[in-house]
Amino acid sequence: MNALRFAVIGAGNGGQSMAAHLSLLGFSVRLWDVEPEKVRALRERGSITLSGAVEGEARVSLVTGDMAEAIEGAAVVMVVLPTVYHGSVAKSMAPHLRDGQVVVLNPGATGGALEVRATLRGGGCRAQVTVAETDTLLYACRSPKPGEAIVHGVKGHVDVAALPASASPEVAATLNTAFPQFAPASSVLQTSLTNMNAMMHPAPTLLNAGRIESRATFEYYSEGVTPSIARVVESIDSERMAVAARLGVRVPSLMEWYAASYGTRGRTLYETVQQVRGYDGIKGPATLQTRYLFEDIPTGLVPLSALGESLGVPTPTMRAVVELANTLLGRDFWREGRSLAKLGLAGTGPEEIRRVALE
Amino acid sequence: MNALRFAVIGAGNGGQSMAAHLSLLGFSVRLWDVEPEKVRALRERGSITLSGAVEGEARVSLVTGDMAEAIEGAAVVMVVLPTVYHGSVAKSMAPHLRDGQVVVLNPGATGGALEVRATLRGGGCRAQVTVAETDTLLYACRSPKPGEAIVHGVKGHVDVAALPASASPEVAATLNTAFPQFAPASSVLQTSLTNMNAMMHPAPTLLNAGRIESRATFEYYSEGVTPSIARVVESIDSERMAVAARLGVRVPSLMEWYAASYGTRGRTLYETVQQVRGYDGIKGPATLQTRYLFEDIPTGLVPLSALGESLGVPTPTMRAVVELANTLLGRDFWREGRSLAKLGLAGTGPEEIRRVALE
Repeated sequence: MNALRFAVIGAGNGGQSMAAHLSLLGFSVRLWDVEPEKVRALRERGSITLSGAVEGEARVSLVTGDMAEAIEGAAVVMVVLPTVYHGSVAKSMAPHLRDGQVVVLNPGATGGALEVRATLRGGGCRAQVTVAETDTLLYACRSPKPGEAIVHGVKGHVDVAALPASASPEVAATLNTAFPQFAPASSVLQTSLTNMNAMMHPAPTLLNAGRIESRATFEYYSEGVTPSIARVVESIDSERMAVAARLGVRVPSLMEWYAASYGTRGRTLYETVQQVRGYDGIKGPATLQTRYLFEDIPTGLVPLSALGESLGVPTPTMRAVVELANTLLGRDFWREGRSLAKLGLAGTGPEEIRRVALE
Repeated sequence: MNALRFAVIGAGNGGQSMAAHLSLLGFSVRLWDVEPEKVRALRERGSITLSGAVEGEARVSLVTGDMAEAIEGAAVVMVVLPTVYHGSVAKSMAPHLRDGQVVVLNPGATGGALEVRATLRGGGCRAQVTVAETDTLLYACRSPKPGEAIVHGVKGHVDVAALPASASPEVAATLNTAFPQFAPASSVLQTSLTNMNAMMHPAPTLLNAGRIESRATFEYYSEGVTPSIARVVESIDSERMAVAARLGVRVPSLMEWYAASYGTRGRTLYETVQQVRGYDGIKGPATLQTRYLFEDIPTGLVPLSALGESLGVPTPTMRAVVELANTLLGRDFWREGRSLAKLGLAGTGPEEIRRVALE
């Protein structure tokens, strides 16, 4: 067995896939989940059957609902759950983390590492812990039921950035023991500002609200992202790029990202998205209670817009999407989401934000 | 022939219906339109065939594209065209209006009379003209081609308010010579703040943008105004009611208006709208280039929101709808629409607004 020990926090699609994959690679893995029934089911089954791009019957060292037990002795804590839960798992982990442990958010969305570091500090964690975030989840996967996970694909490249930024190469090197795909990014500003879900999910979902709520099925990308809606997305993307430029961070535009990730290029975003064959068959959400809104707004548009506000960069389109989603769903994403205070950035300007993100 | 002379400005559905109806009632009517082809077609045909709730072959005294000729000698100038054209027709009328003439906008949407008065003054009109606006068009009608108009229904009650407000009873009395349905409202603030199209059109259209642009047909009200979208509309309606309250004007809420207009009552706006049988068969717009956006935003949400801003009444939901519609259509409705400056209200507070609207 490999010497490096992992904890995997979250036994959903991604968490089960990662825990099983790491186990198959010979690492000791403890898998944690908040749901007692899921922990029980996984324990009773005794193994996770992985199929697809990675195959095998994986025996995870321990499945537990006890956070102290899960992270005890782990060199790396892989957090693999919806980004809206980062704050609450950080609170649970705070008393139990020890010097030298590395916490990696897979992925962090916008501001994940900053939120987790601020939450750990606020929760009284005094250990020297390195918090890192990736720009995307390593897997395209799903788990039809506890103990079974299907990996549709494993990404060829995952960016990872740590706090402080100087620790990113070391974190990447540690992760490379298991996965060669992880590569160090310049800083969490780069990973956090490359949040493409926040571009592609909330606005098209909102602007298809009527269709979604009246249960009309449609292809999310080819039918849902119409020429005019693509223009709204491009406007949101320009706002993100302006925030990044103000911070002196180079991030790809959505069009550049599509060219790099899918090899598709069009004169407009609409044309570009229409060419992505990998999107074929992806249906629009069946309800407005979808992660496209309740995840990508609070950990995407809200922190991007909050950063813009503190930097004097206007984000009117992002703000309009948040505002209407609030009313549509009867929520307050400004309050629920990653405010500057939650990121530990309240009252800071561009230089201070750069400093906090780098140190 | 009746002594009172009318001009009808605009030979669309409503304009042809009104010109024909007035002619059938024995009034002398001059009908104006901006399109030379339409003027020519109407002249060649020589009469307008009215069918439906009002029937007859109407010989209009004169059809013309010359504004001076159209309004010369008219006691009442009935403006019956999309509200976004009120400013431009006011500019055309400014040099030709004479003391004692009454200009009635059918309807004015929000701020029609104020915009027209400010435009006439700015255009150098020194005549003593009374400008008035209604809260709705007298007819539900359509014109399949020039010279033919079908009146589906004639409303039982139309509110009319003049500038100054003290002139409203006299304006209503003059109009009653032809139509008993017109009744004086308290002021243009009442008619302008009872803009239900601005409530029911822009937000549901925006939130059905994907469906509209991908040409999926749907029932606008029963399928397009879903429970969540109805909640957005209710939020916009609350903002309108707050603006009215700040100005001390009593206007019906959307729910009260439905009860009064259609006799439908539900626990929510969604339930209420679902009960309106008159909406059956009304399809969603076939394109995003629809009056539901390009009319009801610039002469509805824009002035309502601008009034809110000057009064310290927040209108975040209205503003979000305008903002997203701007991006969706590539326009700037804040600039195109009825700003406070266009209404002659720039730099004014509640007392001043009340004074300007009343005097």
